[in-house]
Amino acid sequence: MANLPDTPIQDLYPDDFAHCFGCGRDNPDGHQLKSYVRGETVVAHFTPEPHHMSVPGFVYGGLLASLADCHAMATAAAAEMAQSGKAVEGPAPRYVTAALRVDYLKPTPIGVELEIQGQVQEQSERKKVVAVTISAASTVTVRAEAVAVKIPKSMAG
Amino acid sequence: MANLPDTPIQDLYPDDFAHCFGCGRDNPDGHQLKSYVRGETVVAHFTPEPHHMSVPGFVYGGLLASLADCHAMATAAAAEMAQSGKAVEGPAPRYVTAALRVDYLKPTPIGVELEIQGQVQEQSERKKVVAVTISAASTVTVRAEAVAVKIPKSMAG
Repeated sequence: MANLPDTPIQDLYPDDFAHCFGCGRDNPDGHQLKSYVRGETVVAHFTPEPHHMSVPGFVYGGLLASLADCHAMATAAAAEMAQSGKAVEGPAPRYVTAALRVDYLKPTPIGVELEIQGQVQEQSERKKVVAVTISAASTVTVRAEAVAVKIPKSMAG
Repeated sequence: MANLPDTPIQDLYPDDFAHCFGCGRDNPDGHQLKSYVRGETVVAHFTPEPHHMSVPGFVYGGLLASLADCHAMATAAAAEMAQSGKAVEGPAPRYVTAALRVDYLKPTPIGVELEIQGQVQEQSERKKVVAVTISAASTVTVRAEAVAVKIPKSMAG
C-alpha cells in the first residue's frame, strides 16, 4: 500500500465521520485510535488507561473489541485506497461494521502498550473481511475478524 | 431464576471483581451496566451518552459489543446461581469472555434507551454460551453470542 500517505487513516476520514468514540480525531472523550499503513499491514498502538480494566491486572474485553473494530474499519479503508495503485492523499472511505468476532486467546495484561495489526482477507467493492490481532509484549492475546461494509446512505446523513 | 434476589448481578460480584470498565460498580469512569434477572431472561437498560457515537446519529459498535459482553457474563453468573433452585443472595461467580460474536443487524440510533436481553443457550459447569439482543425502541438492532468461562486462577489474583 505504498501509494498511501504516512497519515493515520482516521485522520483522512471526512469531518462528518471524525467523531467516532473509538477513533474519531474530533471526539475528545473517545479513544482516538490511530492506524498507520505499514507495507501490506495496517498497524496501531494503544496503551489502555488504568480504568480500562476487566479484573485487576487485565484489559477490559470490550475495549479490545472496540480497538479491533475501529482498526478493522481503517484497514478496509486503506485497502480500498490502495487499490488504484496511484498516489492518494484522501479522503479515506468510511466503512462500518456488519459483524465482529473476537477470540480472547489469553488475558491481556494492563499497563503495557498494545500493538494492533490488520490485514484484509477478502474484498469486494462494497465489503471487506479483515483479520486483526492484538499483541501485548509481542504475544498475541486477541484474534478478531470483522466484516466491514461501505457506510450505507441511511447512516451517512 | 426465581431464587435470585432483585439486585443487579454486577452488584453481587466480590469487591475484587467490581472494577470492570463495562460494569464495575467501583469504576467511576466506566459504563456501570446493571443486569437484572427477569424470569428466565436477564435484562439491562442503558442510554448511551452523546459521545458514544460512531457516525452522527448512531451508537458506536464497540460500545454495543461492550454492553453485550458484560451482560453476557452477568447472564452466565445468574444461570449458575439459579441452578441450585435454592434462595441465593450472592456472591455472583465471575465469568470472563472467551469469544464474542456481534452481528450489527441495523444501525442503532443514539439518544434512546437500549434494552439488552441475555439468555443462556448451552451450559456446563465451567462454560456457558449466552445469546444477547440489543433493542432500540423495541427493534432488535444487534444480536450477539458470547462464550463465557469461569474466571481462570491466573486472572483471579
